[in-house]
Amino acid sequence: MKAKFQCALCDFSRGWETIKRATEDEELRIKAAVELFRFMANEFSNEAIPAWIGSMISRLIRKVTGNPDPYREIKTRDNERALNLLPSIRAAVNSKATSYERFREACKASVIGNAAEPYILGHKYDVSSAVSLLSSEEFAIDHTQRAYSLLRGRRVILIADNAGEIAFDIVLVEQLKELGCNVVVAVKEKPVLNDATVEDAIKVGMDKVADKLITTGSDVIGLFLNAVSKDFLAELKLCDFIIAKGMGCYESITEQEIDKPVLMLFRVKCEPVAEDIGAKR
Amino acid sequence: MKAKFQCALCDFSRGWETIKRATEDEELRIKAAVELFRFMANEFSNEAIPAWIGSMISRLIRKVTGNPDPYREIKTRDNERALNLLPSIRAAVNSKATSYERFREACKASVIGNAAEPYILGHKYDVSSAVSLLSSEEFAIDHTQRAYSLLRGRRVILIADNAGEIAFDIVLVEQLKELGCNVVVAVKEKPVLNDATVEDAIKVGMDKVADKLITTGSDVIGLFLNAVSKDFLAELKLCDFIIAKGMGCYESITEQEIDKPVLMLFRVKCEPVAEDIGAKR
Repeated sequence: MKAKFQCALCDFSRGWETIKRATEDEELRIKAAVELFRFMANEFSNEAIPAWIGSMISRLIRKVTGNPDPYREIKTRDNERALNLLPSIRAAVNSKATSYERFREACKASVIGNAAEPYILGHKYDVSSAVSLLSSEEFAIDHTQRAYSLLRGRRVILIADNAGEIAFDIVLVEQLKELGCNVVVAVKEKPVLNDATVEDAIKVGMDKVADKLITTGSDVIGLFLNAVSKDFLAELKLCDFIIAKGMGCYESITEQEIDKPVLMLFRVKCEPVAEDIGAKR
Repeated sequence: MKAKFQCALCDFSRGWETIKRATEDEELRIKAAVELFRFMANEFSNEAIPAWIGSMISRLIRKVTGNPDPYREIKTRDNERALNLLPSIRAAVNSKATSYERFREACKASVIGNAAEPYILGHKYDVSSAVSLLSSEEFAIDHTQRAYSLLRGRRVILIADNAGEIAFDIVLVEQLKELGCNVVVAVKEKPVLNDATVEDAIKVGMDKVADKLITTGSDVIGLFLNAVSKDFLAELKLCDFIIAKGMGCYESITEQEIDKPVLMLFRVKCEPVAEDIGAKR
């Protein structure tokens, strides 16, 4: 997906909020804002991919402000909140009668977890409403039946998105294990926005559920084949099926050739993605 | 007043909203956004004056989009709404017992009119609440007594701010006339944001109340002595007293030497101005 006019304000605004989180030094904040303006002047266009722009903004701000992880506190908080909800989420998933229904419910939990994302213009989130959302919300686009038919006994790579959310992904991994899948979970190598890193994955116990915990080898949001490590590419080659979490994966995967079946699980949190995919925000 | 970190987001956001109003062409919108990023990268700093930045942004957007007056509809609407309220506002002012109280109430009406300004981050306005605000709100900083003592029989220049608001300024001009003042009202020469032009002044009938209606000779917000016309400077030289409306005047006048008494009348609509002047937003 390519950037729209609306992304210009959202990208800048999110960058500005990140700067504000990264440092309290007014002069450094202004310096970072000016660098951000310059980056956007040079890189923003209707050919840009929002997830790439967002990744580079995040990298720029970490560099200029010297703060390696501005979202650290938010990630810790979201991990804790999501972990508290995990038993209820798991119970709701396990209450379903059939294997397919449990898989589908786990996908839904995983998508609801994806709501956890700060500073997207006009998007508000509250992890604590997750359990009620599980019974009240439905998929806008639902390919779980097709995915389910392809998954049994396969080697699956799950590309995780945010901290907090990754706790919800545990119930999905549990269901994949029930289907006899071998599950590799990939998180970011280094902090970028509130995306989950190895630290977050371990905090929520994903390392104990997944068959293998790896990183993308990168601090780039979504899936960009030119930005990941050789080790990650080797894992991707070995797998039969990709589960890709978050709008960043949608934005990036739709612009590349991936020769494996991909199930994208995400919440539509902005108008440009809503328009592109044909679902309501 | 110099720009703060917060102004970076507000300036860009306001520019972005102006682009959105100026054209529906997605490609042109993106082009204008990129030009805006470039302008901000080159001009934004802790030495910049927000009103100057805002003026140049407005000029840039008019140029890139080819729309000479993106706020035309907003201005027409605000003029009409304010005109409908004018009789009630005038009655409230005239109900005061003394000449000073009427002058003070007219200043308050003029400040309440200054709330009419779209797209300032976090600032909402509704002209229709003006009459009730007149009785419920008080000045945060009140120098009307000092101003009143200097005004009788003087030549006054009133530097107007927004469309809509300029209808409320009529009651102030009426009170100045009661004090035997000769009143020159200055509006913008060309459209800039929702600032009043000669067209707006005539629409609300300011030309019939003021002794003279002039323009600043410029499309620049606030009062920048290096941006106004020779004719305006001549009028400024002739006058004994300046009434300056709006945050743009505050931001610009505080950065220049003006050798006349100035009464600034404005509503504090953002945090940077609130901090600078020591009043609540």
